[in-house]
Amino acid sequence: MIIVMKPHAPEDAVQRVTKAVESKGLETHLSRGKEVTIIGVVGDKNRLCNDNILLLPFVDKLVPITESYKLVNKKFHPEPTTVTVGNHIIGPNTLTVMAGPCAVETREQLFIIARNVKAAGAQILRGGAYKPRTSPYSFQGLEEEGLRYMQEAGREFGLNTICEVISQEAINAAVKYVDMIQIGARNMQNFQLLREAGKSGLPVLLKRGIAATIDEWLNAAEYIISEGNPNVVLCERGIRTYETATRNTLDLSAVPVIRSKTHLPIIVDPSHATGVYSYVPPLAKAAVACGADGLMIEVHNDPEHALSDGPQSLTFDRFDRLMEDLNPYIQLSERTL
Amino acid sequence: MIIVMKPHAPEDAVQRVTKAVESKGLETHLSRGKEVTIIGVVGDKNRLCNDNILLLPFVDKLVPITESYKLVNKKFHPEPTTVTVGNHIIGPNTLTVMAGPCAVETREQLFIIARNVKAAGAQILRGGAYKPRTSPYSFQGLEEEGLRYMQEAGREFGLNTICEVISQEAINAAVKYVDMIQIGARNMQNFQLLREAGKSGLPVLLKRGIAATIDEWLNAAEYIISEGNPNVVLCERGIRTYETATRNTLDLSAVPVIRSKTHLPIIVDPSHATGVYSYVPPLAKAAVACGADGLMIEVHNDPEHALSDGPQSLTFDRFDRLMEDLNPYIQLSERTL
Amino acid sequence: MIIVMKPHAPEDAVQRVTKAVESKGLETHLSRGKEVTIIGVVGDKNRLCNDNILLLPFVDKLVPITESYKLVNKKFHPEPTTVTVGNHIIGPNTLTVMAGPCAVETREQLFIIARNVKAAGAQILRGGAYKPRTSPYSFQGLEEEGLRYMQEAGREFGLNTICEVISQEAINAAVKYVDMIQIGARNMQNFQLLREAGKSGLPVLLKRGIAATIDEWLNAAEYIISEGNPNVVLCERGIRTYETATRNTLDLSAVPVIRSKTHLPIIVDPSHATGVYSYVPPLAKAAVACGADGLMIEVHNDPEHALSDGPQSLTFDRFDRLMEDLNPYIQLSERTL
Amino acid sequence: MIIVMKPHAPEDAVQRVTKAVESKGLETHLSRGKEVTIIGVVGDKNRLCNDNILLLPFVDKLVPITESYKLVNKKFHPEPTTVTVGNHIIGPNTLTVMAGPCAVETREQLFIIARNVKAAGAQILRGGAYKPRTSPYSFQGLEEEGLRYMQEAGREFGLNTICEVISQEAINAAVKYVDMIQIGARNMQNFQLLREAGKSGLPVLLKRGIAATIDEWLNAAEYIISEGNPNVVLCERGIRTYETATRNTLDLSAVPVIRSKTHLPIIVDPSHATGVYSYVPPLAKAAVACGADGLMIEVHNDPEHALSDGPQSLTFDRFDRLMEDLNPYIQLSERTL
Repeated sequence: MIIVMKPHAPEDAVQRVTKAVESKGLETHLSRGKEVTIIGVVGDKNRLCNDNILLLPFVDKLVPITESYKLVNKKFHPEPTTVTVGNHIIGPNTLTVMAGPCAVETREQLFIIARNVKAAGAQILRGGAYKPRTSPYSFQGLEEEGLRYMQEAGREFGLNTICEVISQEAINAAVKYVDMIQIGARNMQNFQLLREAGKSGLPVLLKRGIAATIDEWLNAAEYIISEGNPNVVLCERGIRTYETATRNTLDLSAVPVIRSKTHLPIIVDPSHATGVYSYVPPLAKAAVACGADGLMIEVHNDPEHALSDGPQSLTFDRFDRLMEDLNPYIQLSERTL
Repeated sequence: MIIVMKPHAPEDAVQRVTKAVESKGLETHLSRGKEVTIIGVVGDKNRLCNDNILLLPFVDKLVPITESYKLVNKKFHPEPTTVTVGNHIIGPNTLTVMAGPCAVETREQLFIIARNVKAAGAQILRGGAYKPRTSPYSFQGLEEEGLRYMQEAGREFGLNTICEVISQEAINAAVKYVDMIQIGARNMQNFQLLREAGKSGLPVLLKRGIAATIDEWLNAAEYIISEGNPNVVLCERGIRTYETATRNTLDLSAVPVIRSKTHLPIIVDPSHATGVYSYVPPLAKAAVACGADGLMIEVHNDPEHALSDGPQSLTFDRFDRLMEDLNPYIQLSERTL
Repeated sequence: MIIVMKPHAPEDAVQRVTKAVESKGLETHLSRGKEVTIIGVVGDKNRLCNDNILLLPFVDKLVPITESYKLVNKKFHPEPTTVTVGNHIIGPNTLTVMAGPCAVETREQLFIIARNVKAAGAQILRGGAYKPRTSPYSFQGLEEEGLRYMQEAGREFGLNTICEVISQEAINAAVKYVDMIQIGARNMQNFQLLREAGKSGLPVLLKRGIAATIDEWLNAAEYIISEGNPNVVLCERGIRTYETATRNTLDLSAVPVIRSKTHLPIIVDPSHATGVYSYVPPLAKAAVACGADGLMIEVHNDPEHALSDGPQSLTFDRFDRLMEDLNPYIQLSERTL
Repeated sequence: MIIVMKPHAPEDAVQRVTKAVESKGLETHLSRGKEVTIIGVVGDKNRLCNDNILLLPFVDKLVPITESYKLVNKKFHPEPTTVTVGNHIIGPNTLTVMAGPCAVETREQLFIIARNVKAAGAQILRGGAYKPRTSPYSFQGLEEEGLRYMQEAGREFGLNTICEVISQEAINAAVKYVDMIQIGARNMQNFQLLREAGKSGLPVLLKRGIAATIDEWLNAAEYIISEGNPNVVLCERGIRTYETATRNTLDLSAVPVIRSKTHLPIIVDPSHATGVYSYVPPLAKAAVACGADGLMIEVHNDPEHALSDGPQSLTFDRFDRLMEDLNPYIQLSERTL
């Protein structure tokens, strides 16, 4: 960290700051310019307890030099991570497609969808059993029963499975039935849940919070990995902006930014980002073109009667066509399904 | 809800929509304009399962008429709610001041702060025992030990107490020690935690999520109340915008907006909103002037050495002066401390 | 437009609204539901003078049915527009590449850049002669001299030319020298300038304002076209959000959204959107993959010494490689350079 | 400015940076830490041509130390500025109220409004003669005729006058008729117009752009003052966020922030910020309470029939009551009307 003093800060103000820093067991390094004195701080910034130094007289600003996340940081782990989910490997050589309904509604519905997404080329079946809903009066999911259907559908059609968890209880159930758990956007800073996901042993898909900076997102991943679970995949799913033509604003720039900051894989969810099925195919192609490691796509046998998120779900026909159209883009990115 | 058909939608498209709606047990009411046909839907909108109607041919848009929240809705409960916390009543006749450190650090620190905020006029002692922190390497709070200190300080100085909870476990501990629990911004859509807070029996301070709309915030309150706990107080604490001169952008318009939509009390937290102690007094006055029911203010005996959020904490001197300066504003709002 | 009355609005309130509407020469169409009465308004909404109807007793909300823009609206002009710039046609069959320096610095600099972007395949040379700069002390451009260099470089290397205009005076100069003018993000709602651009007779590239909704953007295009100039091309260049990892957040969803609302072509500028040269190639590919009609890319012979926006400029090598890499994506989109 | 090198940057990379800086006539000051080397730059940052230094090998980030605005900077001009408009002084001792219709509609309308706002205590009459409208089909103002009515009404009732300008032509007309001109939010970065406003000699009210940072806003003020016109007043009028319950989000934190950065006066416009008349009084009180130098309030004799912005306009009764209610708040702020 660098501490920048205000112009013409007196000598005793500078000394007070260096003493405050050194009293925490850190070293300082002074640089006196004509007008401005700068104090470099060497050592573990966490000892400084945040930004209190700002309160000392004549301190102008603090400039962080190192990121607060370590385990997810590309600087200390330059090679891209691969994450194994059941019999599938997510990473730089594959293009992972997670497809399925927003919510598991019935065993029959899930089976017909699973058969179709498998035939089209998806490797992982998605389906929500615990639904975080804005209104307490909306459908909240089949819970453990839904997880059991996920496991049965996965086995029947040779698909790996992923399901969102929203509580310790849901994690306890999920480890019995599915191959990967998902932390949704609303829980990205539910630090308790992140720690529990870290302890679960299952690979974790971590969605970006609806107003999370990339830094906060990577710190959330750090929570999971710091519990000893290195199998984290990030998922960009749109951020909240003033624009209302789409449900959220898909931030595809996040793909190259994430690539430059971390070794973790990143996939993109154009269904939740846009909320409109007809925008999903062009943005799915764009995601592959800019280097994403995979896609999460909502597919439903009967979107008109889906219990949630019908308008953004692809029918089987549309999903089949998308998977065909994606093929040359996947080849251009030197990946295989 | 109103369903607006596209211009010149054919008759069979209109019929398909009305049938779809009626098959869910709802009534329709048709209005045929020269170009546009509109279908009014009468009955419980939740039966329609979201916005799937949008997928039917020639449907242009859906217009909700009623809010999804009921119990917090001013339409059905026009009188302002009062919430009792220990021996203090939050509501239209009082100006509630919750003050204290961001985090409980030691018993001694908490006692000296409690004595001072009590002397200055605060009715409720705040202090974090479970801290949600962006980085897993930051100080995370004293947990149950911190709650115990809160109880002891409250008893010693005649203060009521509030503490943030971040898990079921924290709620279980909190009910033993404090008078009110707080759901923080990051957990505003942790629906599991909202339900558990609803079941706890304690009054709940619900902070607005960092990117939450007022509608989402009121739906989150609905989760708590729908568990049988009517004692909810809302807290505006700044929203995330592009502006970085303050940590968040305090949305004081939310005070009159909330007043027009719900009967629940609303307080304002200028400390977390701005992140800068010198901005706290002017915005505290502004909050009282625009009708807030109270304030949450961070106060610390030694902000330079605070374990979190030092730069936004008031010293005792500054807090004393603020409380004096607030007095005429409180009188103008026809409230008492 | 639809006027929604509050639940149980009395008959005389309904009558007052219908009379107010009809007094403006518009027709009404009543729909009485059990609880809610809805009044459809038929005719030219502009006569109603905005939203004043909201002030009448028992009016709950207004729901617009038709967009305020007409000439740019796909509903009334379903075929995609092509825009001719010099000897190049922008439209559904071509992939247009506008490349060049942020600012024209010297004749020599411009010529060396023009030669290189031409060789790499660009059809239009971009270069700023009038620079809108946040600080009055930054380099503001060569003005008319810069335009003359643009014309000379265009002729020398067989390139068409585009230059930003920021005033009537700049437009007057531009019509003498360049093939297309650009309205920048900061002037997207400078309605005076939009009208003057409409009268200029030159094709216009209209960049999206930094906080403009898609609706406002299309209304800005309507200003230009309503002056009799149909040759408008839209340019997505990033919007302002809370995220600071990139300069702006490139909104690629805008490409399919724009495609569904208007017949005008849309191109994408990943250079200004991200501000970082290494993010430009992946997002350029993504833009082509999701259906953009073209790209605007900053290229500089010596980015380290560029007078503006060096960090986002591609060197010749990087631009050559990008153009090669783009080729298969252009083919997949069934376009030609 | 400080240049931060990447960890373990080699000596020749450091040397390359220092040479690049020194070749522009600037001085450098090196500080070598254990891991990170920092290069302080002393001299006029504008010579460095932006951020190109970022492109040199091993450069990690640039940290600006000084603001790019000088003339508006409180550091170099600590005393608050007063701005004289006709016979009224805007500054730390007065509370300025600018009131009137959004648009001048007729001479009669303006006169009746002027009489009433004068009687209630306003010192400056506002009224738009050139209206920037999102749609080209909306009412665009009476132009010079409107300005003449403003002058006549001002003289008749002893009010000073302010009118928005949107072009050089409008400025030329305004100098003949009114006492102060306004640059609206949409033109805050129309740098041509800012310079012309600077040359006009009239005091200027500069509204904050809808997505402008405080830094950009102050740089826009710098444009005006750098033309020799020191009479600039800032106006906070809401920023664009994701929240739609109000038209914009009024950023009252901007009042103390602006106070800490510049000597210019700042007033607040709660009418345009919220778009809803009933939210105007509480936020007007809040603005005075947090230290604003004044208010801009829309008042209309007949809001239901206003040609623009009726829903946010106060009737005479409501404006009278607001002015009465404001009185004790004005006294508390040690100002007079």
